[in-house]
Amino acid sequence: MSKLLIVGTVAFDAIETPFGKTDKILGGAGTYIGLSAANFDIDSAVVSVVGDDFPQEYLDLMKNNKIDIEGIEVVKGGKTFFWSGRYHNDLNSRDTLDTQLNVLADFNPVVPDNYKDSEYVMLGNLHPLVQLSVLEQIENPKLVVLDTMNFWMDNTPEDLDKVIAKVDVITINDEEARQLSGEYSLVKAARKIAEMGPKYIVIKKGEHGALLFHEDQIFHAPALPLEEVFDPTGAGDTFAGGFIGYLARTNDISFENMKNAVIYGSNLASFCVEKFGTERMQKLSREEVNERLHDFKKLTHFETKLD
Amino acid sequence: MSKLLIVGTVAFDAIETPFGKTDKILGGAGTYIGLSAANFDIDSAVVSVVGDDFPQEYLDLMKNNKIDIEGIEVVKGGKTFFWSGRYHNDLNSRDTLDTQLNVLADFNPVVPDNYKDSEYVMLGNLHPLVQLSVLEQIENPKLVVLDTMNFWMDNTPEDLDKVIAKVDVITINDEEARQLSGEYSLVKAARKIAEMGPKYIVIKKGEHGALLFHEDQIFHAPALPLEEVFDPTGAGDTFAGGFIGYLARTNDISFENMKNAVIYGSNLASFCVEKFGTERMQKLSREEVNERLHDFKKLTHFETKLD
Repeated sequence: MSKLLIVGTVAFDAIETPFGKTDKILGGAGTYIGLSAANFDIDSAVVSVVGDDFPQEYLDLMKNNKIDIEGIEVVKGGKTFFWSGRYHNDLNSRDTLDTQLNVLADFNPVVPDNYKDSEYVMLGNLHPLVQLSVLEQIENPKLVVLDTMNFWMDNTPEDLDKVIAKVDVITINDEEARQLSGEYSLVKAARKIAEMGPKYIVIKKGEHGALLFHEDQIFHAPALPLEEVFDPTGAGDTFAGGFIGYLARTNDISFENMKNAVIYGSNLASFCVEKFGTERMQKLSREEVNERLHDFKKLTHFETKLD
Repeated sequence: MSKLLIVGTVAFDAIETPFGKTDKILGGAGTYIGLSAANFDIDSAVVSVVGDDFPQEYLDLMKNNKIDIEGIEVVKGGKTFFWSGRYHNDLNSRDTLDTQLNVLADFNPVVPDNYKDSEYVMLGNLHPLVQLSVLEQIENPKLVVLDTMNFWMDNTPEDLDKVIAKVDVITINDEEARQLSGEYSLVKAARKIAEMGPKYIVIKKGEHGALLFHEDQIFHAPALPLEEVFDPTGAGDTFAGGFIGYLARTNDISFENMKNAVIYGSNLASFCVEKFGTERMQKLSREEVNERLHDFKKLTHFETKLD
């Protein structure tokens, strides 16, 4: 079975949406990616850091989802990374209310020996040098996927360029793709980003779906139209987890199969936004995911009469 | 062969985009719808009004595309409707610089006798009472499609409600769907609009594609990702013309076939935006449309391995 190594934050979030607010709940890119990829029954591990204020029940939750947590360092006397944000009424934008790096400030990721031969590596949103450090500990990965965001483009562009040059796939949102490339057209943006290193570019467009670019080929996965988006937190990470989880499970990194990976990413993300935080992802059944896959087929499939 | 009756403006446009500007060129919803539907070799007629300043070559262009122009009234001494606009840098928004209604102010549409038995009716964007008047002249249409916009929602909401109550399909953009329904979620918006009359709701999202709603079913057609959008003028009308043109040609108004109609609408609209005004639509070959249909299939089709 393929191994998947994930690096990303494991954290506390406090979230406000038009529908309500939470106290400190389980959050972090590594958490969402791990829970999402866990739907594919693969051998996965998360590398991260928390403080000793982090509840054992959250670690147990990950273990119960068959996620190896040996690589999650617990810093004695340390405090776990905390993020707090408030979404605007349309849920498409948000304000950060508070960010406390805490133990993340000195995070020195250590990949467990048993995962140094991982075929699949997911570099969740973090400082590019932390991502690079993880990548350097993996012997000969088959596929490396990078998720990042505008914060690193603004603050550590040179470090970011270094990690972008070493990955196979990058996942970013449409505004970030425009910022990174300086191109408004996403077709042109993807071409410029490909010149920086990645052979595959995934551009996430939120409620408008996602685009996958590879050489001159393009694939589009819609987002499932939902009655209500309850909390968008973690949707992008859940997308990334579904994307790489499906690839690790099928162990096929062809462009044709990567289309399916984008669909599974959208599929899982459509569940994530239905409840606060990781709540929906904690209780997701194989049947629900399969049923929604059927919805994606109905949503996109057509058979024309003239051609 | 099914007959298609189109009502809409036939007009002069002057357009500014970041790529250049035009003098007065051929424009109008009726023109774009007619040229788009003409790709399906159907029996179509446009009902409209122009002044005697309107060049014969433009009328000949429509005739050469096998569009019956008997219903285009030429008002002696009258001036043709004129619209001028300037697009912003992202091409997603525009300012209207000038609107001269001219002969459109007293437009009294007359459907030619030979088209009173049209099976397909496309009510292009116009005053709702003009749209209603056309509809009342058609004996027993099989499918009526309405295109409208926020201007009529703001200024003549009661008249608009009357025509919405009588049509089978409405095509509007996402912001208009939200305005018309008072709902932010497009799923909820479509449901509310269906309660106003139309059994099918098409929500156009520009570069993000289009959604088709019918009862509990949803279909999504992407827009083709383009290197460059040159001029968005007429894209929505071209979409509508492709939509109803395909339906008239295949004479099948099932939901399954309406999915194809949305794809053809997106297909033709993707050509429209490649040049100023109607330029690209005037020189479009069957082969080009078929080739792009193939692109749409590659863009959307996937075959999952797990299910």
